[in-house]
Amino acid sequence: MPDGGDRGISRATVARLPRYLGVLDDLGGHQATISSDDLAAATDVTAANVRRDLSHLGFPGVRGVGYEVERLRSLLRRELGLTADVGVAIIGAGNLGRALANYGGFRRRGFRVAGLYDIDVTKVGTEVAGVPIRSLADLDTDVVAADIAIAIIATPATVAQEVAERVAGTGVGSILNFAPVRLRLSEGVEVRQVDLSTELQILSYYRSRR
Amino acid sequence: MPDGGDRGISRATVARLPRYLGVLDDLGGHQATISSDDLAAATDVTAANVRRDLSHLGFPGVRGVGYEVERLRSLLRRELGLTADVGVAIIGAGNLGRALANYGGFRRRGFRVAGLYDIDVTKVGTEVAGVPIRSLADLDTDVVAADIAIAIIATPATVAQEVAERVAGTGVGSILNFAPVRLRLSEGVEVRQVDLSTELQILSYYRSRR
Repeated sequence: MPDGGDRGISRATVARLPRYLGVLDDLGGHQATISSDDLAAATDVTAANVRRDLSHLGFPGVRGVGYEVERLRSLLRRELGLTADVGVAIIGAGNLGRALANYGGFRRRGFRVAGLYDIDVTKVGTEVAGVPIRSLADLDTDVVAADIAIAIIATPATVAQEVAERVAGTGVGSILNFAPVRLRLSEGVEVRQVDLSTELQILSYYRSRR
Repeated sequence: MPDGGDRGISRATVARLPRYLGVLDDLGGHQATISSDDLAAATDVTAANVRRDLSHLGFPGVRGVGYEVERLRSLLRRELGLTADVGVAIIGAGNLGRALANYGGFRRRGFRVAGLYDIDVTKVGTEVAGVPIRSLADLDTDVVAADIAIAIIATPATVAQEVAERVAGTGVGSILNFAPVRLRLSEGVEVRQVDLSTELQILSYYRSRR
């Protein structure tokens, strides 16, 4: 398993950082410190992993006090590369693409949705929640002009692979795929797959044991 | 942190089970065994955690061989309570609710979307991808008639809390919330929060280090 970057943080640790940040964001400044136990309980991570992860980032907690919320929040945002707005393109202006364009959570977490891309000419030129719908043919130039770093694939599964290859061709090196199909792209492109049924399965576990 | 049920499986372990199952499902029967290292790499979990989790479930791998894919798959489905179809209601027939009703991944993972619920009378009576749009007023009776075990909240954030309380009142004990707001419900209801920006943040991490 490759490591997580320059400091040898594991991919498993990296995958937990957004969960820690989400909890701290949601505290909304109402709490100055948080214990590793509370952070663990809110994220379904063990307290031992919380302590190890944050210690790897050079942020050891204080025994009996925990972690300073605002300092830890800044550190996590910096680690995640969220100090400046990150430009995002959503490909596919169907229900899912529209829902994502309209999703309040992205902006709150430091992402800027620059455009919604589709091949349907009747949609191009309109907008959703202030996000312009653009032709997929314009993605190439928009990636540079609008500083797009990440593309979200929200197309039907049948065309996701083809669309992802086209996106990779524009130079965007990070792809988030919502289509329920596993993409195969060249080594230089980082792909994350969202499986919307993961959380349903966790609920199912607890339900089946009640 | 509470344990995961009758056998003392931790919540952290439970949260990883769907990720293991997803990888096995996607192998599509093309592979008889999988090593803990490969399962770890595909799920962003450490190999040590993979081995410990599966050993907790009474499924130790065979050294030099790994895990038998089909047996492990059956075990995970059983652990997750996915042996029979689980009935799901989606609340909110906006873009997100429609996208979820249309999402192919749910059925593939053992979930049956029984209905899409809304208060907009102009939508009630129509359908999306074969899923009927019903009035929220009918949820009470439908929960029993259609054997609904889990509700997905896909409403605007402003009404999510009110809707969730109403859902909890129908006896549905498991809620998956897509609205970007933290719900507060009574102890007896299991709530999972989906943050659609989590995976974007992980991508941002790797991007900022290239």
